[in-house]
Amino acid sequence: MTQKIFIIGAGRSSSSLIKYLIDESIDNNFEIKVGDIDLSLVESKIGANERASAISFDVFNDAQRIVEIQNADIVISMLPATLHFKVAQDCVKYKKNLVTASYVSDEIRSLDVEAKKNGVLLLNEIGLDPGLDHMSAMKVIDDIKAKGGELKSFKSYCGGLVAPEFDTNPWKYKFTWNPRNVVLAGQGTAKYVEGGKYKYIPYGQLFKRTDVLSVLDYGEFEAYANRDSLSYREIYHLDDIPTLFRGTLRRPGYVEAWDLFVQMGMTDDSFEMNVSGMTYNEFFHSFLDDTKFSAKDYLKSHFGVSDIVLFKVEWLGFFKETEIGLEMATPAQVLQKLLETKWLLEEEDKDMIVMQHQFIYELEGAKHELHSSFVTLGEDQTYTGMAKTVGLPVGVATKLILNGVIKGAGVKVPVSKDIYNPVLAELEQFGIEFIEEEIR
Amino acid sequence: MTQKIFIIGAGRSSSSLIKYLIDESIDNNFEIKVGDIDLSLVESKIGANERASAISFDVFNDAQRIVEIQNADIVISMLPATLHFKVAQDCVKYKKNLVTASYVSDEIRSLDVEAKKNGVLLLNEIGLDPGLDHMSAMKVIDDIKAKGGELKSFKSYCGGLVAPEFDTNPWKYKFTWNPRNVVLAGQGTAKYVEGGKYKYIPYGQLFKRTDVLSVLDYGEFEAYANRDSLSYREIYHLDDIPTLFRGTLRRPGYVEAWDLFVQMGMTDDSFEMNVSGMTYNEFFHSFLDDTKFSAKDYLKSHFGVSDIVLFKVEWLGFFKETEIGLEMATPAQVLQKLLETKWLLEEEDKDMIVMQHQFIYELEGAKHELHSSFVTLGEDQTYTGMAKTVGLPVGVATKLILNGVIKGAGVKVPVSKDIYNPVLAELEQFGIEFIEEEIR
Repeated sequence: MTQKIFIIGAGRSSSSLIKYLIDESIDNNFEIKVGDIDLSLVESKIGANERASAISFDVFNDAQRIVEIQNADIVISMLPATLHFKVAQDCVKYKKNLVTASYVSDEIRSLDVEAKKNGVLLLNEIGLDPGLDHMSAMKVIDDIKAKGGELKSFKSYCGGLVAPEFDTNPWKYKFTWNPRNVVLAGQGTAKYVEGGKYKYIPYGQLFKRTDVLSVLDYGEFEAYANRDSLSYREIYHLDDIPTLFRGTLRRPGYVEAWDLFVQMGMTDDSFEMNVSGMTYNEFFHSFLDDTKFSAKDYLKSHFGVSDIVLFKVEWLGFFKETEIGLEMATPAQVLQKLLETKWLLEEEDKDMIVMQHQFIYELEGAKHELHSSFVTLGEDQTYTGMAKTVGLPVGVATKLILNGVIKGAGVKVPVSKDIYNPVLAELEQFGIEFIEEEIR
Repeated sequence: MTQKIFIIGAGRSSSSLIKYLIDESIDNNFEIKVGDIDLSLVESKIGANERASAISFDVFNDAQRIVEIQNADIVISMLPATLHFKVAQDCVKYKKNLVTASYVSDEIRSLDVEAKKNGVLLLNEIGLDPGLDHMSAMKVIDDIKAKGGELKSFKSYCGGLVAPEFDTNPWKYKFTWNPRNVVLAGQGTAKYVEGGKYKYIPYGQLFKRTDVLSVLDYGEFEAYANRDSLSYREIYHLDDIPTLFRGTLRRPGYVEAWDLFVQMGMTDDSFEMNVSGMTYNEFFHSFLDDTKFSAKDYLKSHFGVSDIVLFKVEWLGFFKETEIGLEMATPAQVLQKLLETKWLLEEEDKDMIVMQHQFIYELEGAKHELHSSFVTLGEDQTYTGMAKTVGLPVGVATKLILNGVIKGAGVKVPVSKDIYNPVLAELEQFGIEFIEEEIR
C-alpha cells in the first residue's frame, strides 16, 4: 500500500531530507509531496520524479493546509519553528503523525494530551541540534547507566563551521546558517551547573570564558556556553549530575575577537541608529570614546585586545570609509551587513559539522572519561553538512514511523532507546557515526 | 479670594513642598488639601494647621478623584510618574492647572492640544532632575546666546549622595532615593554627542568611562553617562551643539567597584534564580568560574580589580555565609537586599544634592569655559536635600501660577525665561543658588 508523505518547506535544510525520501520511495512505496510558498524552489529540489510532486503551499491558507494534511499519511514540517503550531493542530485533529526538527514550544507541548487521545505522534527535535545531539548523548548515557556507572559530568559541544580546506579567512568562520542568529548569539544569561553549583554567565562575560577541546583529527576548537544548559538535566534524566554544560564551537581566536564587538556594543539589537551616509569606520568609532590616539591604540589600551584581534577587525573592513548603505538600523544589523559580505560561503566552499560529548563517570570505584565525537563535511552548497545532519534524522525517523518501527503517541523528543537506536543505526550508513574514545 | 491647592501624594519628596505651601498660605490666602492612600502619612506631614487638611485619597477611585479635582483651583501630583495620566486628563476636562515633577510621558504629551483649547497649564519636570537642571542650565544658555556667544559644549552632572560628614562607608554612598533605581541604573545604551559625532556606550562599558570633576569646595566626583543625552539637544534648543553630555555623580571609587557587579552579571533583573537557603557568598560565587584559586585571586586576575575594590566588596559582606533569606529572586533583587542593609541612611544622616553644568562657548573669537554649580545638604531625614530640591521648585511654581506670574496653557516644561526666572529668583531665598565660575 502506498504511503503519502507531505513535506512542508523546501529551504536549505530540506535538500538531504527530500533526496533521502525519494531514494527510499520505491522500496517503501512512498509517495512524496513537497509544498513551499516558492514553487520553483520545490521543483529544483525534487527534479523529474514520478514518486515526488511539487505544490505551491501557503501554511496560512487554512483550506489548503487542511486538505493537504488530510490527504497525507504523515507530515514533515521544515518551516521556521514559530509556524509549526497550525500544522500540528491539524495533524492532531486529522490523526496524522508529524515530524519536525525544532525545539518543542509551549504551544506544541500543550497538544500532548489531545495527541495521545487521538493516537497521534508529534516527534520533534530530530534534526542536528536539537536531534543528533540528543540521540548520540542518550545512547552513551544509557550505556553507562546500564553497566552501573554513575555520571559525574556531561559536557556537550556543537558547531556549524566551514570545512578546513575552505577555512581561508582570519576568523576561520563563514556563515553556514542564519547570519542574524550568529550575530545575536548568546544574548541573555548562560546557565549551567558545575561541581553541584549553579553558574551564571552574563553576556559581557560569555566570550571571555571558553573551553578548549580537540576533536578527532580536526584540531582544536573553542567553546562558549549555550544559554540554558540547566533544562537538559530533566530532558536527559540527569537530575543529580554535578556538572552539565553545553557549548557552541568556533575555531580558536574567533571568540576573543568577537568579544570585542560585544564589549563595544556592536551586537546590540535594542535600538536603531541613523546610519544614513555613514561609513563602517564612522560606525565603528561611534562606540569609542573620543580620543587623540588612533582607534587601534585605543582598542589596545582600553579593551586590551591583541594584534591578532585587530588584524581580524581590520580584515572585515571596519577601518575603511565604505558606506554602510542603510538608513535606520540597529548596531547588530550593521554588523551583520558587513559580515555577510566577508563571511559569505562561496560556491565551491563546503561546511563542516562538529559535535563532541564529554562524559566523566565512576564505575566500580574508578573514574572514567569518555569522549564521543562526530565530524562531517558538506558535499556541496545543496547537500551541506547542515542539510545532511538536520534532514537525514528527520527522513529516517519518518520512514521508521511509517514502517511501524517507531511507535507511540503524544509530543516526543528522541531521547529513548526505541527511537534513537534504529535512527542512529541507519544514519551510520550515511557516515553519521560517533567515535568513542576513552581518555586516560 | 481663597485659592484651593490639592496635593496628591505625601511621600518622601512632598515634605518640603507641603511645608512651603503651608508657610505661604496666610500671605497668599491658600487653602491646602493633601491626599494620600495613607492618611496617617499626610497627618504627620501637615500637623495641626487650619490652612491645611488631610484626606485619604485613592487615585483609582474615579468618583473621589473627579470631586477633589473639581473642588481645587490647582492640582499638584507627586504620585509615581505612571499614575499622573488619569489626574492630568481630569485636570484638562475640569480646567484646573496641574504641576508635576515628572518627565513628560507620551500620554501626557498627547493632552497638549486639548489643554491649550481649555486654557489649562500642565507644568511638568519642575523638580530637581528634571527641573532645577533645566532651569539653571537654560538661564546660562540663554545668557550666553543673548551676548552673542556660540555654545560648543554643554555637560551637565547631577547626583544624590550622602553629606560629607556622614560619608562614612567605603563606597561613600548611601541610599537617599529609590534603591531599585540605583541598582538598575544605566541598563540599556547611553547616547550622547561629542565633537559632532554620536557616541554609544553599552551597559558593559558604562562604568568604565568616567568624567572626573571638582564641585566648589566639595572635592572630586566621578560621573558616568546618563542613558539619553541626545534628546536634550531639542529640549534646550541646542540642535547643532557639537558636544552634549549628561552624567550621574558618585564619589571617586564607587564607579570602578560597581562595574565589577555589572561585569559579573549581579545587576541582571531579567531572570530569577532559586536562592532558597543560599548565602551571599554562595550567590557571589555563582557568577564566577569554578576555580582552584580564592574568589579574591580570581577577581584580581579575571576582572583585573584592585585591592580597594575587593575591600568594598568584602565590606558589603559578599564573602560571608549570611543567608539571603529570599526564595526566587533576580540577581538585582539579591544585590539590592544586601545593599539596603549596608547603604542605609541612618536616622542622623543627611543627604547631599550636587549639580554642575559645564559650558564651553566662543565669544568674539575667544573660547570661554564656565561652570555653574550647586550643592545643598539635607536638614534631617524629613527635610532632605532631595525633598527640598524636588519640592520647593514645585511649590514655588504652584504659587506663581496662582498669583498669575506664570501664565500659559498646554503641556510645558520650565525651559523658558517666563518660568525659570521667577522660580529661580525665589529659590535663592532658600539657598538654592548656582555659583558661576569662569575657568581659565
